Amino acid sequence: MIDKIKRPLILITNDDGADAKGIQVLTRLMCEIGDVVVVAPDGPRSAQSNALTVTQPIRFKTIELSDGLKLYTCTGTPTDCVKLALNEIVERKPDLLVSGINHGSNAAINVIYSGTMGAVLEGCENGILSIGFSICDHSLNADFTTFEPYILQIVRETLKNGLAHGTCLNVNSPVNQILGVKVARQCDGKWSKEYARRTDPVGRDYFWLTGQFENHEPESKDTDEWALANGFISIVPTKIDLTAYEAMNAVSEWKFEI
Amino acid sequence: MIDKIKRPLILITNDDGADAKGIQVLTRLMCEIGDVVVVAPDGPRSAQSNALTVTQPIRFKTIELSDGLKLYTCTGTPTDCVKLALNEIVERKPDLLVSGINHGSNAAINVIYSGTMGAVLEGCENGILSIGFSICDHSLNADFTTFEPYILQIVRETLKNGLAHGTCLNVNSPVNQILGVKVARQCDGKWSKEYARRTDPVGRDYFWLTGQFENHEPESKDTDEWALANGFISIVPTKIDLTAYEAMNAVSEWKFEI
Repeated sequence: MIDKIKRPLILITNDDGADAKGIQVLTRLMCEIGDVVVVAPDGPRSAQSNALTVTQPIRFKTIELSDGLKLYTCTGTPTDCVKLALNEIVERKPDLLVSGINHGSNAAINVIYSGTMGAVLEGCENGILSIGFSICDHSLNADFTTFEPYILQIVRETLKNGLAHGTCLNVNSPVNQILGVKVARQCDGKWSKEYARRTDPVGRDYFWLTGQFENHEPESKDTDEWALANGFISIVPTKIDLTAYEAMNAVSEWKFEI
Repeated sequence: MIDKIKRPLILITNDDGADAKGIQVLTRLMCEIGDVVVVAPDGPRSAQSNALTVTQPIRFKTIELSDGLKLYTCTGTPTDCVKLALNEIVERKPDLLVSGINHGSNAAINVIYSGTMGAVLEGCENGILSIGFSICDHSLNADFTTFEPYILQIVRETLKNGLAHGTCLNVNSPVNQILGVKVARQCDGKWSKEYARRTDPVGRDYFWLTGQFENHEPESKDTDEWALANGFISIVPTKIDLTAYEAMNAVSEWKFEI
């Protein structure tokens, strides 16, 4: 047990693909903490949520890295990566799953679209301490330097303290200077103006997803969006039980007889 | 306002594709209640969760049905269908979104993988009363007959009573005889033995998603799985805020200084 705590087995994945800078940084950091297995998509799988590949089979490929690390690339989604890793690749259940570092925010409602967080929810569903790390910068060459020591600290605290059953963490970082960490709730807001309409050479319309995020509660200081806008890392404890318990009594009073 | 209540605008989608029996039954039922717009994927998109199409554009096609109904088929995921409908197709915000009837259960943890429920969460996120309907039968020719009057009743009660902000409904039906309706919570459980490993003609392994659901609390009588196993329709009020509020205090006490 002591050995296990000293060298936890850490499963790493992401949704930007195995060659993204974010997962490379995360892998380097996790090697300071434990034994690492990387099982990541073989290309970009952003906004894949908890999607599963069901209409075709998936495959994985093993790549031996120069430093002895084993990297597995998978043809599926981030959630497929986690399922495949747990069922077919790792020899025992990992002590920790980390996903990211995502190039782009997964705060607020983005959590439900995020492939990064899809993988985290899948780890959580399998009883593994699971954390998603994202930075509010979409660029391929995003700078994770100031975020790095916080990632190590958050991972160490998670391993030390554990998380309640069915709970995982959604961690987002602002860019550049970081003032500290706020434990926050998922901000209420939505995307609008979501499509760019274009016309192809034969005159048919097509639509690119785009849009802008509308914060519905910009004054609330306990949200992830507020933390990020004010220079703090946000940590949202996130759950896989989507039941709206507070709505159960009201709905129970409806008339369902036919 | 009375007109609007009398003839609500109903957006219909699904994840089995526009030609599935389930969405055809649901469309027929909804025509009894309101004005209907169908925007559905142009083929199967099961287990697409809240996935969004971001690496390529999407398109839609309009099909005029013989009875005057307009059907729009979309190249994207169920969530894409809802976003595209709201941004580019419907002239005003629908009063109701219904998704399904899914051929197969979306109870328990299936809610997070389900494309049917992905569309419902997207409707909810946009402030629309949203309900997912599923039946515990994967067959293409599933029989929805006993479920149909309950669908009408649940929709009417939803339009009459409304739902709290950020809350939608996940409705699942057993097959054959239905004893009634239970408002339930999402059952705790997980999938295991999830892959069938096969070998292709050149000797490379590939993996088909399969598996079996393990109910972690078969004795609990307040879950959706219990309701379904005992002949009841389950209604789980479901939310888009994934914050684990009950975990916030504990995590707030961790040490984050670096």
